Amino acid sequence: MHSVRLGLIQFAATDDKASNLERATALVRRAAQAGAPLICLQELFTTVYFPLCPTNNQFFDLAEPVDGPTIQRMSALACELGIFLLAPIYEEANGGRFFNSAVLIGDDGKIIGVTRKNHIPRIHIDHPTWGEIDEKHYFEPGMNGYPVWNTPLGRIGVLICHDRHFPEAARLLALEGADIVLVPSASRGIPDVGDPLDAWLIELRAHAIANMYYVGAVNRVGLEQGERFLGHSVIIGPDGVVLQMAGGEDAVICADLDLDTVRATRIARGFLRDRRPDTYTGLSK
Amino acid sequence: MHSVRLGLIQFAATDDKASNLERATALVRRAAQAGAPLICLQELFTTVYFPLCPTNNQFFDLAEPVDGPTIQRMSALACELGIFLLAPIYEEANGGRFFNSAVLIGDDGKIIGVTRKNHIPRIHIDHPTWGEIDEKHYFEPGMNGYPVWNTPLGRIGVLICHDRHFPEAARLLALEGADIVLVPSASRGIPDVGDPLDAWLIELRAHAIANMYYVGAVNRVGLEQGERFLGHSVIIGPDGVVLQMAGGEDAVICADLDLDTVRATRIARGFLRDRRPDTYTGLSK
Repeated sequence: MHSVRLGLIQFAATDDKASNLERATALVRRAAQAGAPLICLQELFTTVYFPLCPTNNQFFDLAEPVDGPTIQRMSALACELGIFLLAPIYEEANGGRFFNSAVLIGDDGKIIGVTRKNHIPRIHIDHPTWGEIDEKHYFEPGMNGYPVWNTPLGRIGVLICHDRHFPEAARLLALEGADIVLVPSASRGIPDVGDPLDAWLIELRAHAIANMYYVGAVNRVGLEQGERFLGHSVIIGPDGVVLQMAGGEDAVICADLDLDTVRATRIARGFLRDRRPDTYTGLSK
Repeated sequence: MHSVRLGLIQFAATDDKASNLERATALVRRAAQAGAPLICLQELFTTVYFPLCPTNNQFFDLAEPVDGPTIQRMSALACELGIFLLAPIYEEANGGRFFNSAVLIGDDGKIIGVTRKNHIPRIHIDHPTWGEIDEKHYFEPGMNGYPVWNTPLGRIGVLICHDRHFPEAARLLALEGADIVLVPSASRGIPDVGDPLDAWLIELRAHAIANMYYVGAVNRVGLEQGERFLGHSVIIGPDGVVLQMAGGEDAVICADLDLDTVRATRIARGFLRDRRPDTYTGLSK
């Protein structure tokens, strides 16, 4: 059995980047002490979820290059603890290009790869519990697709928050052989779905079942702009079963993933074998 | 409000085609009397689910052309009752080609269109409650894609049983503008998913949420080859909520679908607007 302990971290962010980094560092240490060699932080972990705030171009100043101080610090931490760490940040690339990104760092502190959020939401709903979300103002859509990183802990793919609403993205990670899909998020639910926790779980469990991989989804908690994030970070098996789930407060959760299950499930269901790519051309038009 | 009452019919089939036709006819009448102008029967409604039996080429003799006696009879029934009817049959086309098909018949008795099952399962599991399923022996994979039929009752798409395990297929129907997706099935669950009813609902609800349409899924009931079909035919809204669900016995269920909700939900979520077709080319390779 090829078993990997996955640790997920959710916490309430503040306006102060330094204190968020402190908090994240402490919780990563806790997850590592709990024996997790693979740890995932939440979307935009160093900042508040500013697309929820009134539009303000000063938020662009929160962005950092992939080799900036935040990732340097997380690299040192990963190296010290001997862990693989997914650190989602607001990325500024050359020439003033801004992305919602997640950086996978190896246990030697080196960057393995970067996934950039591909699907960028813009939400306006006349509803008391749904304010504006204007991500299209802050983030260029990712252009490097849905990479899967081959690590000693398995093949790891990433869906960043809104990306999880797109079954196409979830499937592409399976086609690249993902064993584990990490989903750093900042979610309060889905517009026009009554029960936000129900919707959070249905989508993620459906991805696990259809694609026959483990899902580890981190969701932030806390109150920002008068709205509460859902939390309930969750680890789900290829059978769609919830292995571990957090509540609505700061938390570290861990579960042991048996990666051999992924292959066995793919043989049992045949869902990849039975695909009909010849009939799917309409999806990319 | 553009409201349509959808009726779903599930029943235990016998080895006798004539008696299955009688039973289906009686239940279609019952659904029509309950006020449903749109009615859906189960996969291969005139026969047992023979891919579950030991392989036997005599089962090919159960197939009929689309203009054969079964559909002629269902056309007369649809015309008499003034209903739209989805009738799934074992289809034999020109030259000994065999398909698992569903025929949509209009309220004038004319055939609106035919959907052929695109994904053909072949399952072998060493498990006491999972026998062989050898559909690949009996059915050629469909080659006419995922049509959506524009009717006075809304735009109707079809996923036949195994097709529902493929998020690509569910999405293509949304891209063609489906308001209602009908899913005639013969399911006992999913291999390596513990709770079959749970899996049945997660997949269907996830399709409804991601694609923002109504789902009406019919599943057969009864004991065949010592195995029990799950039943639990279900009608689900674009919010993922179960509107009506049957149990494990013969049943007719109905629900009123507000088709205006489909458009409103697509505006609220923006999930079609925010798609990234440029990043999905890998799905059709």
